[in-house]
Formats: sequence, structure tokens, C-alpha cells
Amino acid sequence: MSTIENRQFRLARRPNGLPEREDFALTTETLPEAGDGEVRVAIDYISLDPAMRGWMNAGKSYIKPVGIDEVMRAGAAGTVIDSKHPDFSAGDKVAANMGVQTHAVFPGKQLRKVDTNLAELPVYLGALGMPGMTAYFGTLEVGALADGETVLVSAASGAVGALVGQIAKKKGCHVVGIAGGKTKCDYIVDELGFDAAIDYKNEDVADAVKRHCPDGLDVYFDNVGGEILDAALANLRLGARVVICGAISQYNKTGGKMDDAAYAPKNYMSLLVNRARMEGFIVFDFTDRYPQAAKDMAEWISAGDLKHREDIVEGFDTFPETLNKLFSGDNFGKLVLKV
Amino acid sequence: MSTIENRQFRLARRPNGLPEREDFALTTETLPEAGDGEVRVAIDYISLDPAMRGWMNAGKSYIKPVGIDEVMRAGAAGTVIDSKHPDFSAGDKVAANMGVQTHAVFPGKQLRKVDTNLAELPVYLGALGMPGMTAYFGTLEVGALADGETVLVSAASGAVGALVGQIAKKKGCHVVGIAGGKTKCDYIVDELGFDAAIDYKNEDVADAVKRHCPDGLDVYFDNVGGEILDAALANLRLGARVVICGAISQYNKTGGKMDDAAYAPKNYMSLLVNRARMEGFIVFDFTDRYPQAAKDMAEWISAGDLKHREDIVEGFDTFPETLNKLFSGDNFGKLVLKV
Repeated sequence: MSTIENRQFRLARRPNGLPEREDFALTTETLPEAGDGEVRVAIDYISLDPAMRGWMNAGKSYIKPVGIDEVMRAGAAGTVIDSKHPDFSAGDKVAANMGVQTHAVFPGKQLRKVDTNLAELPVYLGALGMPGMTAYFGTLEVGALADGETVLVSAASGAVGALVGQIAKKKGCHVVGIAGGKTKCDYIVDELGFDAAIDYKNEDVADAVKRHCPDGLDVYFDNVGGEILDAALANLRLGARVVICGAISQYNKTGGKMDDAAYAPKNYMSLLVNRARMEGFIVFDFTDRYPQAAKDMAEWISAGDLKHREDIVEGFDTFPETLNKLFSGDNFGKLVLKV
Repeated sequence: MSTIENRQFRLARRPNGLPEREDFALTTETLPEAGDGEVRVAIDYISLDPAMRGWMNAGKSYIKPVGIDEVMRAGAAGTVIDSKHPDFSAGDKVAANMGVQTHAVFPGKQLRKVDTNLAELPVYLGALGMPGMTAYFGTLEVGALADGETVLVSAASGAVGALVGQIAKKKGCHVVGIAGGKTKCDYIVDELGFDAAIDYKNEDVADAVKRHCPDGLDVYFDNVGGEILDAALANLRLGARVVICGAISQYNKTGGKMDDAAYAPKNYMSLLVNRARMEGFIVFDFTDRYPQAAKDMAEWISAGDLKHREDIVEGFDTFPETLNKLFSGDNFGKLVLKV
């Protein structure tokens, strides 16, 4: 059996603001043999997600931060090389939080086998992976979306936002998305079937929300935080739900903790006037219910109700720069690194 | 039948910041006879509540603002003079939103008869009135308080806060109150049975919350907004509920709308990290359920489980200055104006 070289991006220091290449160390080690119950995987695709920025910060958050010198945490999908777990054999396609590396030795019980006849491998990092679960539970459970309501979603062409809007359209809702630039705005309306798009780079968001949703919002699904959250708060209806999924506009501003956003929402008293609620959630809390959600999502994709788009960047070594496409708004669709 | 002079405080102009005497006009008119279904009332007590500041502002809020030249809106309790409604007769004690005036002609169907054997008349403006209903529904419904949880409440010696804390104690909760000054802090611990008090005038609230609630808060009942809200947000537990009842620290800062607080909570991302929710409510939404709540509250008062304290100021003419005791923190207990 030949030796396998495993290349890894490890966290070298905690980033201050936007992550830089120097915040990571690119290391190489020989991939160990699989122990009992373990599986060796050649990673094909690595998921790049906004939440990764939070995981790089020190201090208590919803999960332990990545330690200095540890392999950077990330979802990944790949192909089984060999296996000492009865459920897996060479050639199986699998997904799990295997980290930013080219290979992994991973416990079989934490590995999920995926069916590439149903969808291509990268989709299991997007619509059928964490972003898909986030959109599903955030919209239907936390947002408690009811048929025919009015919904606004930010980062609407992104991995989560695009699915939120399409799930809402399935429920007969009036759906407005916020995205940056004409291409993304056209995409969510023409390709995904949103009722309207707001281009935050070229128009006043608060005015546009008022224009597209004159009776106010029942649900605002927030991926970005900042002034856009305030624009949504200013336009709530009675009993509205504001779902706090993320605050990508803020993650790199503080050089500090994820729970210390630089921008504070001044319109929060709209929650009182409108008897509304603002609620945060973490998709990992719904792990027990992923199988049903994944089944629903797969059916909706097969039926053509849910479209998905992956933004696949090739080259393991580009990891630090490719990750930053998320924060500059340069990615278009679910950002995936091809190893 | 002799002529009755009715004296009234009418809103003369919209206050800018703290209300001033010049914002009101003191008018006198002859009290009309009661029409069919109406009742004439001599008002004995007028309820002074923080929400009144919001009602003075222009613009859409949760209820119509008081119009210029209209009698200032307020809860009131009094004695029936004469009645053309079958349910009321002279001498009955009644309560309703009769406004800041010495007398009222009022529709009988909007009037609530009260039992002064059970509790003295001013109590029907406090523990058995709007503040009581606010504490009851805010704590048990919006806060969804469970037995044995950890609860923080601000304005804890006030009309609502004192009841919130005592309801929570009935549920076996660990209860911490925030109040201004040693007298109020001693009162909530020694008289009302709170587990601890935080004196916001003399200690760092965020530090004190951490000290008294080292495992974090399950419920924060917010009457004040501002930096105290941020201190609470920084100390949430998983699944916490932040109940937005008011923001008295903010009402006079903007000269503007109630839903435009001057202070924005910078720690709102704690909602995400802790999968917590922040929810506003208006007690009027629970009107249908007041009877059951009032029955519960009356039983708890009779049983000695709920203590109440009224701060009764005599002199109808002092209305503008007495109202401002709410905003300076000078009142101690439910503020009531005795006519």
C-alpha cells in the first residue's frame, strides 16, 4: 500500500478582521492507516461557509473555537479509500465535517454515505448539506412560516438565502430577496421565482422593502445583520418573526467575537410595537431531524421546485483567498473548494 | 340636578423629550348628562404609566396616538354618579381608560365594575389593572417561564417589575431585580422576596448579573432598554427569552417615535449564539383573557403571595410633574394620581 500525503490548512493564529493567508499554515503529513471503525477518505470538495469565520475566534460561542495548530474545521465530501467500518467500502461517496485537508481518517459512525445518482457530490455540501438544513429549519421551524405570508431574505442568491426564498415560494408566499448587483438580482427573480429583488449595492434597502412589501413583513430571514437588519425591523407587520441566521456583514469588523457585532440594530423597538420576535438558531440543534429534512429537500429538488447553484473553485491551495469571496460578496451560489 | 364641572388635561402639543406642563392644556367643561347606555363617573384615581409617553407621539404605533386637543389617555378608577346602563348604579366603583380628567361620561359596556372589599380602588390601576395584566402575560405567556429558571427583571420595584419578580418566585425561580438606589433594592429583597438586587445607580450591571446569575439568564424581562438590555443580552443561557415590555430609559431621548430607541443593543448576536429570542408584546392583545388573569392575581394577593405598593400623589393639577416621576425614577411603586 503506497503512502498517502495529506495536505492540511491549520489555523496558525486568530485572524484580526478578514482572514489572511498568514493566519493559516499549510502542512503535509502522511495519512495514517484506518483504525478499528475508521474510514480513510480522499476529500473531493470542501464547503466554505460564513460560520467558519466565527469558529476562528477565541472565546465561548455556540461551539468550541478551532484551536491554534488544529486543522481548520469545515464540511467536506469525498470518496472512501479503504475502510475498517462495516458500513463503508472503497469507492463510497461520503460527507462529514472532515476539515480543510485533502484526506482524512474519520470515524465511520460520524460519516454520512451519500447517493450521487440523486445529486452530484458538491450538492451534499449545499442544498442537501448544512446550508439546506439551515434554510429548511430556519424558515419552517424558527420562522414558523405560514402559507401566503410576506417574506424577506438577505444574501438571497447565497447558499442559504436562495433556498429560503424557494421554500417560501412553495408555501405560496410573497418573497423578496436582497442581493448585490444586477446579475444576482436577476437570477433570484428569473431563475428562482422570487417576486422581487432588492439590489443593496444600488438602492436604498429600507425604501425598497417598503415599496415591495407595503403591508410589511411577516418573516425576515437575516443572513447579513447591519443596516439591512434595521431596514427590515422598520417594516415589520404585527406578529412578525425575525430569524437571525447570521450577520456576515459584521464577522470581520470586530476582530473579536461572533456575538459582538459592530452594528447594533437601532430599530429593535419595532419588536414591541409589532409584538414581533427576533430569534437566533444554530442548525446543529436540529441534527436529530436532518434525515426527514434531507428527504424533503431531495424530493423538492427532484420535482424541480428547488434549484441550487454551486460556485466551485478549483485548487486546494487557494483556500484562504477563496474563503474571502464569501465576505466580499464575490461568490455566486454555494461556495465549494474543489480539491 | 346640579351642574358638574369636569376638569381635563388635554394634549396641547407633542412633547419633545420629557413632557412639560406647556405640552398640556388644563380645560374645564360642564359634564354632559349620560346618554342611553352611558354612565357618569367621578374619577378618584388616575393611573400614570410609562406607555403614556409613547401615546403622545405622532405616527403609527401599536395604538392611535392621542390627538392634539384630545383629553390625555389614561387608565382611571372612580365612582358612578348616575347611570343609564342597566349594569351600573350610583355609588358603584368602576375602572376603565377614562383619561386624565376629574369626571367622565362613559359607555357602560366599556366600564369594569370592581370590588373594593377585595382590594382598594387604586389597586385596580396596579396589580389588578394594566400593570398586573402586563406582568402576568409577559412573564407566563411571552416569557414562557418554567419552574426553577433564572429570571432578571429591570425596574424591579416598579408597578410591573415587582409583580414579575413575585410571579417568578411563585414558580420557584431564582429571581434578580434591577432597581435604582438602596431603598428600592432592599425593598425587593426584604419585602418582595427576590433573591438578589442590582443597584444600577451604584454598580456595574453587567458584572453584577454575571455574579448573581453565573449560569446565565433564562428570562430577562425588560422594562428599561438601553445599556441594561445589553448587559442582559451578554448573559443569556441557551434558549433564553428576552421579553421587551418597554424601554423607559429611551422614551424621552428621541423626541420622536417610540419605536426609534436612541440606544441600540450591540449584543443582539447573543440571540444567535444562545438560540435565544427577543420578543415584544402589548398587554391589550390579551384582553380576552384578562378575567382569568385578574382572578389568579386576586387569589395570589389574598394568599399573601403578591405584595403591591402604590405611590399615590394627591392633586389633579400636578399631573404633568407627577407623570415625570416615572422617568426620573423618583416614584416607588405603582404611580397613581389622586384626584
